[in-house]
Amino acid sequence: MVLGLDPDPRALWPLADGRESQARAGGSETPRPAQAAADAIVRHCRALIDAAGPACVAVKPQLARFELLGAAGWAALEAVIAHARGAGLLVIVDGKRGDIDVTAQAYAGALLGGADSPFGHIDGLRADLATVNPLMGGDAVEPFVSAARLLGSGVLVLVRTSNPGAADFEDLPLADSGRMWERIAMLVDRLGADGIGEAGLSDVGAVVGATEPGHLQRARELMGNAPFLLPGVGAQGGRVEELAAAFAPGRAGGLISASRSIAAAHQVAGGEPAAAARAEAERLRASAWELSDRFR
Amino acid sequence: MVLGLDPDPRALWPLADGRESQARAGGSETPRPAQAAADAIVRHCRALIDAAGPACVAVKPQLARFELLGAAGWAALEAVIAHARGAGLLVIVDGKRGDIDVTAQAYAGALLGGADSPFGHIDGLRADLATVNPLMGGDAVEPFVSAARLLGSGVLVLVRTSNPGAADFEDLPLADSGRMWERIAMLVDRLGADGIGEAGLSDVGAVVGATEPGHLQRARELMGNAPFLLPGVGAQGGRVEELAAAFAPGRAGGLISASRSIAAAHQVAGGEPAAAARAEAERLRASAWELSDRFR
Repeated sequence: MVLGLDPDPRALWPLADGRESQARAGGSETPRPAQAAADAIVRHCRALIDAAGPACVAVKPQLARFELLGAAGWAALEAVIAHARGAGLLVIVDGKRGDIDVTAQAYAGALLGGADSPFGHIDGLRADLATVNPLMGGDAVEPFVSAARLLGSGVLVLVRTSNPGAADFEDLPLADSGRMWERIAMLVDRLGADGIGEAGLSDVGAVVGATEPGHLQRARELMGNAPFLLPGVGAQGGRVEELAAAFAPGRAGGLISASRSIAAAHQVAGGEPAAAARAEAERLRASAWELSDRFR
Repeated sequence: MVLGLDPDPRALWPLADGRESQARAGGSETPRPAQAAADAIVRHCRALIDAAGPACVAVKPQLARFELLGAAGWAALEAVIAHARGAGLLVIVDGKRGDIDVTAQAYAGALLGGADSPFGHIDGLRADLATVNPLMGGDAVEPFVSAARLLGSGVLVLVRTSNPGAADFEDLPLADSGRMWERIAMLVDRLGADGIGEAGLSDVGAVVGATEPGHLQRARELMGNAPFLLPGVGAQGGRVEELAAAFAPGRAGGLISASRSIAAAHQVAGGEPAAAARAEAERLRASAWELSDRFR
């Protein structure tokens, strides 16, 4: 299980609500809204990680939620990542960046290993995996793959996403043969060929939405060694039981990601947010394990 | 002309080099590398805006360059945007974000109008235009269009980019007819139909690389009212003289963007960086005006 961290300032757990917190250290000034929201988001994410983390292998912070809070949000992201690492979890930064070569290098630095500069080494987030948008082509993805491979980290390329709009372009049939997303899958397979580790999994993976399980079998045919990140379980309608094909290369072949269904489990199940989140994460993990056991 | 701001810490103007700057206010501590680089980038961008801004209508900060510096980078971005506004320039944030609906809303808040929260209104960057990646489909673009339309700002959708890799997916011929990028162009035209202003230009524009001018005529046929952002002039090989079709709806129909060719003009022309940048920006503007005059 991957614990998605999508903290919406309007839907934080009660303990994370900064309006009830004590005055900030260093002064009685009221923090500006972005700082107050960022502080609350850190508390929320820490509590969520403490509750659901033990049932997960990784966290997946959604960069948009932190970017919304500007500089305070980026500092909050760093704090949340540090907390997740302290809990022994991998970190998948979900930013879906993609741009021309020199710009992709800067993004890869930001999210993965940082960059050297005349001012000293600039630290990146040093994520274990980063999501990448391949629309602009192979040269927009390759700088991420190069950076990741040097560091022993990895890249997850959007192949077939979990939203209804994925049908607009990703699913378009090509004149040649196949669909747009299948062509992207071939790029993933090609870029990952030199990065296959001992467990048979490559360092170039794919984001394949859990909402259209019919695609998974075909995706696995095209990308035999790619780890699949499977978002869309829960709030977006995907069901763990339908994701079997993802696990064909082994238990680690499928990374099932859930965000709102865990963080907001108490709204369905009742009880304390933390207990409900932990129970839901454990339930999802048990489903995934039962499924992946068939492929051991 | 659009002045691209792609500040690479390894290639800043001499005046911007923080290693020679005075001690920072508030203490003699050496700032950490990211903060020192961010400070230098702000000085560089301010000087560049002061030099080349008078020949431009807008600045286009490349978010990757700021993101690389973390929280310090985001604060630097805000400072650079404030300086550009003070110089009377429009602001085009180039982040090429794209994600599912709720996430796209968060990005739109970050880059455009901010968001309401229990902690008070969170300010966004309030950019005039933001670049968006449409791979995930219409529902990934629409939240940006809605947010922009409320604010009187706009969106620039990647349609046919300026990098060689654009051929990998954007140029793929579809089974139905046309190419992938032409299908994206149709989405741009459709989403922009309700946002056409008095000058005949829509609030949904397109990024069309200046490196393949053969595409421009077709792009203009498909998107009659879209403003075109035309990156790739200069360092990427595009030439202003080949961009005539972009200006068919009038002088404002084409926004020619140049970054490295302006900021690094002194490496070609010699002399002071500021004077060379100003001269190059004026030269590019004169070329563009001569071209667009044919369509007045």
